[in-house]
Amino acid sequence: MKYPETKPPVFTLTAGPVDAYPEVLRALGTTVLYDYDPAFQAFFEELTLKAQEALGCDLPPLILQGEPVLALEGAAASLIAKDDVVLNLASGVYGKGFGYWAARYAKKVEEIEVPYNTAIDPEDVRAFLKAHPEVRIVCVCNHDTPSGTLNDIDAIGAVVAEAGALLLVDAVSSWAGMPTSPTSSQAAIYVTGPNKCLGCPPSLSLVAVSEAAWAKIEANPDAPFASMLSFTDWKNAWKKTEPFPFTPSVAELNGLNAALDRYLEEGPEAVWKRHAVTAKVCREGIKAMGIELWPVSEEIASPTATAVKMPDGIDAGPVLAEARARYGISMSAGRAETLGKLIRIGHMGPTAQPAYALLAVAAMGGALKALGARVDVTAGLAAAQAAWDAAIDA
Amino acid sequence: MKYPETKPPVFTLTAGPVDAYPEVLRALGTTVLYDYDPAFQAFFEELTLKAQEALGCDLPPLILQGEPVLALEGAAASLIAKDDVVLNLASGVYGKGFGYWAARYAKKVEEIEVPYNTAIDPEDVRAFLKAHPEVRIVCVCNHDTPSGTLNDIDAIGAVVAEAGALLLVDAVSSWAGMPTSPTSSQAAIYVTGPNKCLGCPPSLSLVAVSEAAWAKIEANPDAPFASMLSFTDWKNAWKKTEPFPFTPSVAELNGLNAALDRYLEEGPEAVWKRHAVTAKVCREGIKAMGIELWPVSEEIASPTATAVKMPDGIDAGPVLAEARARYGISMSAGRAETLGKLIRIGHMGPTAQPAYALLAVAAMGGALKALGARVDVTAGLAAAQAAWDAAIDA
Amino acid sequence: MKYPETKPPVFTLTAGPVDAYPEVLRALGTTVLYDYDPAFQAFFEELTLKAQEALGCDLPPLILQGEPVLALEGAAASLIAKDDVVLNLASGVYGKGFGYWAARYAKKVEEIEVPYNTAIDPEDVRAFLKAHPEVRIVCVCNHDTPSGTLNDIDAIGAVVAEAGALLLVDAVSSWAGMPTSPTSSQAAIYVTGPNKCLGCPPSLSLVAVSEAAWAKIEANPDAPFASMLSFTDWKNAWKKTEPFPFTPSVAELNGLNAALDRYLEEGPEAVWKRHAVTAKVCREGIKAMGIELWPVSEEIASPTATAVKMPDGIDAGPVLAEARARYGISMSAGRAETLGKLIRIGHMGPTAQPAYALLAVAAMGGALKALGARVDVTAGLAAAQAAWDAAIDA
Amino acid sequence: MKYPETKPPVFTLTAGPVDAYPEVLRALGTTVLYDYDPAFQAFFEELTLKAQEALGCDLPPLILQGEPVLALEGAAASLIAKDDVVLNLASGVYGKGFGYWAARYAKKVEEIEVPYNTAIDPEDVRAFLKAHPEVRIVCVCNHDTPSGTLNDIDAIGAVVAEAGALLLVDAVSSWAGMPTSPTSSQAAIYVTGPNKCLGCPPSLSLVAVSEAAWAKIEANPDAPFASMLSFTDWKNAWKKTEPFPFTPSVAELNGLNAALDRYLEEGPEAVWKRHAVTAKVCREGIKAMGIELWPVSEEIASPTATAVKMPDGIDAGPVLAEARARYGISMSAGRAETLGKLIRIGHMGPTAQPAYALLAVAAMGGALKALGARVDVTAGLAAAQAAWDAAIDA
Repeated sequence: MKYPETKPPVFTLTAGPVDAYPEVLRALGTTVLYDYDPAFQAFFEELTLKAQEALGCDLPPLILQGEPVLALEGAAASLIAKDDVVLNLASGVYGKGFGYWAARYAKKVEEIEVPYNTAIDPEDVRAFLKAHPEVRIVCVCNHDTPSGTLNDIDAIGAVVAEAGALLLVDAVSSWAGMPTSPTSSQAAIYVTGPNKCLGCPPSLSLVAVSEAAWAKIEANPDAPFASMLSFTDWKNAWKKTEPFPFTPSVAELNGLNAALDRYLEEGPEAVWKRHAVTAKVCREGIKAMGIELWPVSEEIASPTATAVKMPDGIDAGPVLAEARARYGISMSAGRAETLGKLIRIGHMGPTAQPAYALLAVAAMGGALKALGARVDVTAGLAAAQAAWDAAIDA
Repeated sequence: MKYPETKPPVFTLTAGPVDAYPEVLRALGTTVLYDYDPAFQAFFEELTLKAQEALGCDLPPLILQGEPVLALEGAAASLIAKDDVVLNLASGVYGKGFGYWAARYAKKVEEIEVPYNTAIDPEDVRAFLKAHPEVRIVCVCNHDTPSGTLNDIDAIGAVVAEAGALLLVDAVSSWAGMPTSPTSSQAAIYVTGPNKCLGCPPSLSLVAVSEAAWAKIEANPDAPFASMLSFTDWKNAWKKTEPFPFTPSVAELNGLNAALDRYLEEGPEAVWKRHAVTAKVCREGIKAMGIELWPVSEEIASPTATAVKMPDGIDAGPVLAEARARYGISMSAGRAETLGKLIRIGHMGPTAQPAYALLAVAAMGGALKALGARVDVTAGLAAAQAAWDAAIDA
Repeated sequence: MKYPETKPPVFTLTAGPVDAYPEVLRALGTTVLYDYDPAFQAFFEELTLKAQEALGCDLPPLILQGEPVLALEGAAASLIAKDDVVLNLASGVYGKGFGYWAARYAKKVEEIEVPYNTAIDPEDVRAFLKAHPEVRIVCVCNHDTPSGTLNDIDAIGAVVAEAGALLLVDAVSSWAGMPTSPTSSQAAIYVTGPNKCLGCPPSLSLVAVSEAAWAKIEANPDAPFASMLSFTDWKNAWKKTEPFPFTPSVAELNGLNAALDRYLEEGPEAVWKRHAVTAKVCREGIKAMGIELWPVSEEIASPTATAVKMPDGIDAGPVLAEARARYGISMSAGRAETLGKLIRIGHMGPTAQPAYALLAVAAMGGALKALGARVDVTAGLAAAQAAWDAAIDA
Repeated sequence: MKYPETKPPVFTLTAGPVDAYPEVLRALGTTVLYDYDPAFQAFFEELTLKAQEALGCDLPPLILQGEPVLALEGAAASLIAKDDVVLNLASGVYGKGFGYWAARYAKKVEEIEVPYNTAIDPEDVRAFLKAHPEVRIVCVCNHDTPSGTLNDIDAIGAVVAEAGALLLVDAVSSWAGMPTSPTSSQAAIYVTGPNKCLGCPPSLSLVAVSEAAWAKIEANPDAPFASMLSFTDWKNAWKKTEPFPFTPSVAELNGLNAALDRYLEEGPEAVWKRHAVTAKVCREGIKAMGIELWPVSEEIASPTATAVKMPDGIDAGPVLAEARARYGISMSAGRAETLGKLIRIGHMGPTAQPAYALLAVAAMGGALKALGARVDVTAGLAAAQAAWDAAIDA
């Protein structure tokens, strides 16, 4: 009995998109309202304030009408002026990639790059900024998803604040899955999205923009306006009395509303714990099978995805295909530099459940074994179960 | 008994967003798949080919991950190179607005502008192009929604083709509601979206790009790439073997799939007729009440929305509010130059039903009357019913 | 342009089933839980108490797992013992029909029957009960749907109470659409369902059973138990600590929960007013066209459905077919004695909106006219609109 | 980290209700049609014929408007006349229970009862029928769910046919999960429901009635009519030209339609295999932990549920609570005689996936261990995984 490629898998345990929460899926089907209907405009205002509560930011966040790459590109275009020197921190494919966007707009982009299975050392940032007082903006990815690794954005944020620069954070796949916020990281711009740990489908972005960032954007003559990439266009759109720059994604906003309700009702701490326990169960299982994690240390491994290093001589592609065909479980490939070298098991939103970690261990182990790798699947399952029990009894 | 602003209206008879078809709303709640799952990649390929069938274009269309303003801005950015002379045709707010985008990228933007209740005369375009052989790109809006007026893009397309220029069409709110296509208009780029006559919520664009347009875009060194605005990034993404530039809006694509199935099953001709009859019923009712249509002639009035001119001394805002409060019916305001001067009744997708036209006549008439205008609501209802009967018996 | 029989109509303006409220339709798709899961058992208890609040009854009502005919048959079987003399009040097909069920269980069934376009006079009941002190149970239908007529169950209830008998009420298609309750009618058993004015799909019943009725049932040795028809089996099932007699209809209960939330949030008085205004608009329109209502007097016409008498020589069947084919509007036929003689326009739940009454007038008038009847459709539309305006401005 | 009782569990791995397939949940929300609308009547006819295809029966099956206890009670009431001698076969709580219904209607009910962890021996039936030629009807439960045991209804059916009696089968929780059909069992009445292996919510029944059974019912003067319990009332209701006895459960029928489409598209054999493999994986895991199955032999264990015998001194109640609290997994208790003695893990519809069997083993093992039982959870997981791999590689 195998699962054909032509049919959806049974479980999607990827690093996003993951399946949305059932209440989000139902909310997507809510009657579509005219965006200028007073009931909709009031809804959009309430929704923005609810997102502000969830994000814990000082100003109402932007809800942008595209998945977070829109917000990231827009952030670069808006914040970075042509006389700015930018320091880009690259510990993975996404962090590295942001540098290319920064380079489009900046006078100069400096970069600290570290191997993609490690994290940025905040002390290196401190030293760099000391040596380069001309740096005005520092860019960092909190969870570099293609590596499954975390940068300590709170520590980096403190260093950046001390240096009087502005921090631009990509927290797309960490926010709502672990303790991280615009405030704790002192971010000028903090980009995230509802399509990862919040359990929505992809198509919207959430962006916390600080007072300082707005001042910088407003002073930037090249900041996009009347554009899909614009932040400014949307600054006041959250108010029920203000127009929309263009038609918002009504159905997705209904989904976001349900997701925020769920998040706030379950309680952020409980949600984060669920992600952390799931990651722990997954990793204990993986390691016990004799497989290595991709990050050099578990301290920098994100609780929202487990990146598993492929054993020597084994490409990730066939392992993914085998896991899907044998066990009906879809997992994520790497990207660019990490493609082929690792597989990512997502722990995000509805899939942040230890039970799924156990299944992921079974599928990963079984697929590797079927392809001839030396793995002890039983040891993996036992360790995963033990880690789960330990978390339950903690 | 009145309808409070704090609750959704009973009927949304706007020029978009309109409510989605029930099958589309249900499809939005389909299990969200990983975009790189083979089942999803195959789905995206099939979906693109289905959209191609519906659009009747020569190449697989782009499905872009944002509502059509994204596609329009992207079209300007992609097609118009910095040495291009562009002729923008402005018969309304949207056509006029496109000129501003064109101006960002072009060497020079020429413009033919006509009053916003009239249409572009193809002969004027012919004369202009004859006089200005340097024009490489002509931009036109098929249905300028804020005016409810149509430009004859097939005739204009023939003129443009003859002149050897490229035509860029905004057919967002006409396509799928009347006979119009990329082919009949000989468009280089034909932008539309599923959020109007196809009956989806807003958040995606459909773009037919011709071979000639692709050649032009590829020759444009400034055409966006690695950007939300890029067309090039998505050119091959429809193939199941190719990667996505960024995460597609999975739920919305599921909705689009249901909408296309519905459109093709009902049959485009039947759908167009439904829109045309609804518009006819609406207009006969409006006129019989003693109210004027906004377009100077019904020949240029779009079958997908009826723009109603407010009587002298009456602002559209209070009329809209009154219609909503009294009858529970939400209709569309004008935009920019037409704001306050007209009200738009949409006939799009699920609301393209003569029954809704009758209700719109009742609400428009009743609201005007309540505000002191001299309208004969009974005559309006009678005329609407008569027009409906005539269409039934035709 | 006509609407084919093979496709669903555009509007279902029947006397039930009517379309469910959108929030109910979405709630039906909630994850199905195991009935003995503690979360489900707690939900069922809360749901029952919420239904009690909506019904205003003294004891937690029964939620039975079948549409109200189950509850009516079960009520007869449970309440009526073989030595009981029953008085059945028949002013229509449903009231008459209940007598057949009563006759299965009673020693004797007496009956007051009146023409099916009139109502029972409470004074006749008083006189009968005085003359027949042996009557223990009186059965009455509040809204005899196939006639669209109301019996005054509060007045009848007072008479029955005075006589020391028990009242069994069928309030299926009146409750939640007008002021009626188990308490105001002093009913021993008050049967209703969520599938009419509450806006759910058909498949559940709600039954308020008084202390006195429970005592009578418990004293009835033939009352069903371990049976689909049993009331006793379900008496305590609402408590989260008690078992279910058999598996409840989980999805429908989720729908009911959403419907009750909606009803209580909109407010029963507001809901009733909406039904009343819709009925008024409809009737003024019908009468002005020159068509008669079926009930002899509007005082006994239910606000939840308008029964329209067919003009002499015209059968209802072709009129229904014509209205559907021409206008896309489905309305209800009569039943048994009223079949062919009348058409019913429902005003129930989501269709209790004056706008639908206007459409019904258009469709009814247009269909009759198309079949050669002499109707003044314009006068009907004008009168409907005028009645609507009057209600708005009241 | 534990899962509170107040929130739904993460996984419902019960013996029903189980969660419905996603496409079924979405279909429940389809626009509700008037039952006498021609489109609905045509739909009901097509649906019945689709159910006939799935059941493989000779006549269009009944679709009854209540979960299968309705159909079972109705079958007893319809088929068994007051002069009938019935042989009831009781190998579990449900089979035993049917005897009580039979006794209400029969002249005499004979019974072969065997311990509730065993199955009926067809040879015993043969001997009994030989000794009791007066037996006209034999009743048997295919899968006695509270025991997780199967009776061989095809063999029993052959014996009954040979004896010239009629077989009444309860196949509620076996049909669509294993090879069983009205034809192969030569059943006169074959009751099943869409709420188990077909993956619908509970509220409908499917009943195949043979020509012989219809003849017997029609000859039974006490067969219910004009009753919720009637089969006769519904005999012709499947035809689009015939009336319904009462309002059908429109939403549930829409769900059933989606479920049948899914079943026929996946293919019955593939569905059955999925159920069988899941059961195998589950049992290998359970046994390897050192826990016994409830059935005396695996040959009689149903592929649709695994009944697990509690170790001596351990009551099932706390184990269920512990599994839910620790692992978020809801499983089924026993019923009546089996209550407390066993736990049932369902493999039905969407939960008939080996991955869920692995989770069930983890939860069952972990809960037992937490309560002090001696179980080797690791051995269980290893054996489950091995069984899964064996099935994959078969």
